[in-house]
Amino acid sequence: MTTVLTGITTTGTPHLGNYVGAIKPAIHRSLDADISSYFFLADLHALIKCWEPERIAQSTREIAATWLALGLDTDKSVFYRQSDVPEISELTWLLTCMTAKGLMNRSHAYKAQVAENQEQGSEDPDKGITMGLFSYPILMAADILMFNADEVPVGKDQIQHLEMARDIGARFNHHFGEHFVMPKAVVDDNVAVLPGLDGRKMSKSYNNTIPLWLPEKKLRKHIMKIKTNSLEPGEPKDPDDSALMDIYRAFASDEQVAEMRQAYRDGIAWGTAKQIIFETLNTELQQVRQNYEDLMANPAKIDEELQKGAAKARQSAKPFLAQLKDAVGIRPIV
Amino acid sequence: MTTVLTGITTTGTPHLGNYVGAIKPAIHRSLDADISSYFFLADLHALIKCWEPERIAQSTREIAATWLALGLDTDKSVFYRQSDVPEISELTWLLTCMTAKGLMNRSHAYKAQVAENQEQGSEDPDKGITMGLFSYPILMAADILMFNADEVPVGKDQIQHLEMARDIGARFNHHFGEHFVMPKAVVDDNVAVLPGLDGRKMSKSYNNTIPLWLPEKKLRKHIMKIKTNSLEPGEPKDPDDSALMDIYRAFASDEQVAEMRQAYRDGIAWGTAKQIIFETLNTELQQVRQNYEDLMANPAKIDEELQKGAAKARQSAKPFLAQLKDAVGIRPIV
Repeated sequence: MTTVLTGITTTGTPHLGNYVGAIKPAIHRSLDADISSYFFLADLHALIKCWEPERIAQSTREIAATWLALGLDTDKSVFYRQSDVPEISELTWLLTCMTAKGLMNRSHAYKAQVAENQEQGSEDPDKGITMGLFSYPILMAADILMFNADEVPVGKDQIQHLEMARDIGARFNHHFGEHFVMPKAVVDDNVAVLPGLDGRKMSKSYNNTIPLWLPEKKLRKHIMKIKTNSLEPGEPKDPDDSALMDIYRAFASDEQVAEMRQAYRDGIAWGTAKQIIFETLNTELQQVRQNYEDLMANPAKIDEELQKGAAKARQSAKPFLAQLKDAVGIRPIV
Repeated sequence: MTTVLTGITTTGTPHLGNYVGAIKPAIHRSLDADISSYFFLADLHALIKCWEPERIAQSTREIAATWLALGLDTDKSVFYRQSDVPEISELTWLLTCMTAKGLMNRSHAYKAQVAENQEQGSEDPDKGITMGLFSYPILMAADILMFNADEVPVGKDQIQHLEMARDIGARFNHHFGEHFVMPKAVVDDNVAVLPGLDGRKMSKSYNNTIPLWLPEKKLRKHIMKIKTNSLEPGEPKDPDDSALMDIYRAFASDEQVAEMRQAYRDGIAWGTAKQIIFETLNTELQQVRQNYEDLMANPAKIDEELQKGAAKARQSAKPFLAQLKDAVGIRPIV
């Protein structure tokens, strides 16, 4: 049995790129009977960069509803809010005591901020940097080591943090006995990257996203706005150089894709192609959108699922933390 | 009502200097009906410097038994183990996100270590420094702000940490509304300083201590070892230049002290003076030593007291943490 732990950020609104590139494949993988899956809403991490309470609260609700609506099976996986498991914060301090400051000094995320300060001619290299940003790899180590995760699916920018989690865990093991499994970063080089409205990678920072949970009419409007070239109906189009086609590929069957490629070469009008693509997307999303709307209308159901997940997470976290505290000398008096 | 919070380190064995200079006056003050007292065993702090599990476990037991044996009234004060209140660790992370790294860079304790590294010609100024040492003021801020302490009795070396707690709390208040009271450092300039066996201040680091809980015979032996000069019996002695006299003063009544001063001038033999001092100390310690031995023989009683204290501490910490989480956006879904 392999334990796979996936952190989910809770500061944004999910878009089609998240759905295709991250959520759908993660949920798919969690159905594998040989995998023990942990999914957590990283709301403690969110506080590092986001001091907008409403946004955090709203996003947490939306993201939780999203994963549930898309079919995450909470009987087969553990789905919880990080902040609902106090043992993670407790472990963070134990690990803080074991972490060399020099290790944090070398964190890319921190160094990037320092470099930016220096470029801007700031006298203080640490200007605007919080301890949250600086010590964030320790919290991440606690997230991972708490459940002895074997694998952590991450983007390339997170590989260093996984190495740090191993470092910190290994140091604890060295001093206090073997408690932690060494986690492995799993970087999927074949992540489906969906283009956004402007053809670049769909990303919040480019402001080019198609939100996942648009009502039907708005979804259609967004798809109609996807950038195309000025070729007229009847003129042949290149299916290998088309954001529209790339988006379609993420939702259509091989057969549908082959048909569309032919239609491109036959000079399909952009408007017609967009309509077909809208219908295909809408077919896939119709049911799950209904699920999502039902959940958002019934937050008690979301809460119930998260409470269930927290209880499952704590079932292992509690005794494990007690074991770790015992190892460092924090023991029952009796 | 003034809330006073006192942290107690859990890495050593209590000696007479701790008793006279810290424990006795603190317990005395806690009996004041206008004061709400919190006393906590700082076992999470202990992990910063002490990676000896047995020592932490043993010291925690001894120190807890000491305060109870000396008459700390756990009905009138809240006496708990820091690690028994997970809300403190949770708050630590919330505050970590609000703390400027620059603030921690300026901590005396951190800077002293860096200076030491530089003196020793180390290339890495952070050599041997853990994140525990670096971010320790944040945990201390959480200790204090969690219970909205008005006053924190500290030594001079801790004044800066209190200022940091105010800084961190004020920043939180500024962004998320008024939640925290601004704590005040209370430095007692008249702390009774007890000399040790060699006449210097009694301190673990000078290796000149008289442990508080010595059995009678050993206590006598230690007192007989206190350094005196070579004046013979019959020769007048100076009561104002005598470690022995200073120790006696901490335990004897004014009348007893006056008598002893006269005896000095009359040329009392050192051995006789030491015997009187031993008897006076022993009279004061006899009953509490019995209390201590009873407690150490019955750890369930210590545990029960600490559990009671943790429950009382969490009674306010739980709802307060929920309020703080709500303020930053970590809210119930419903």
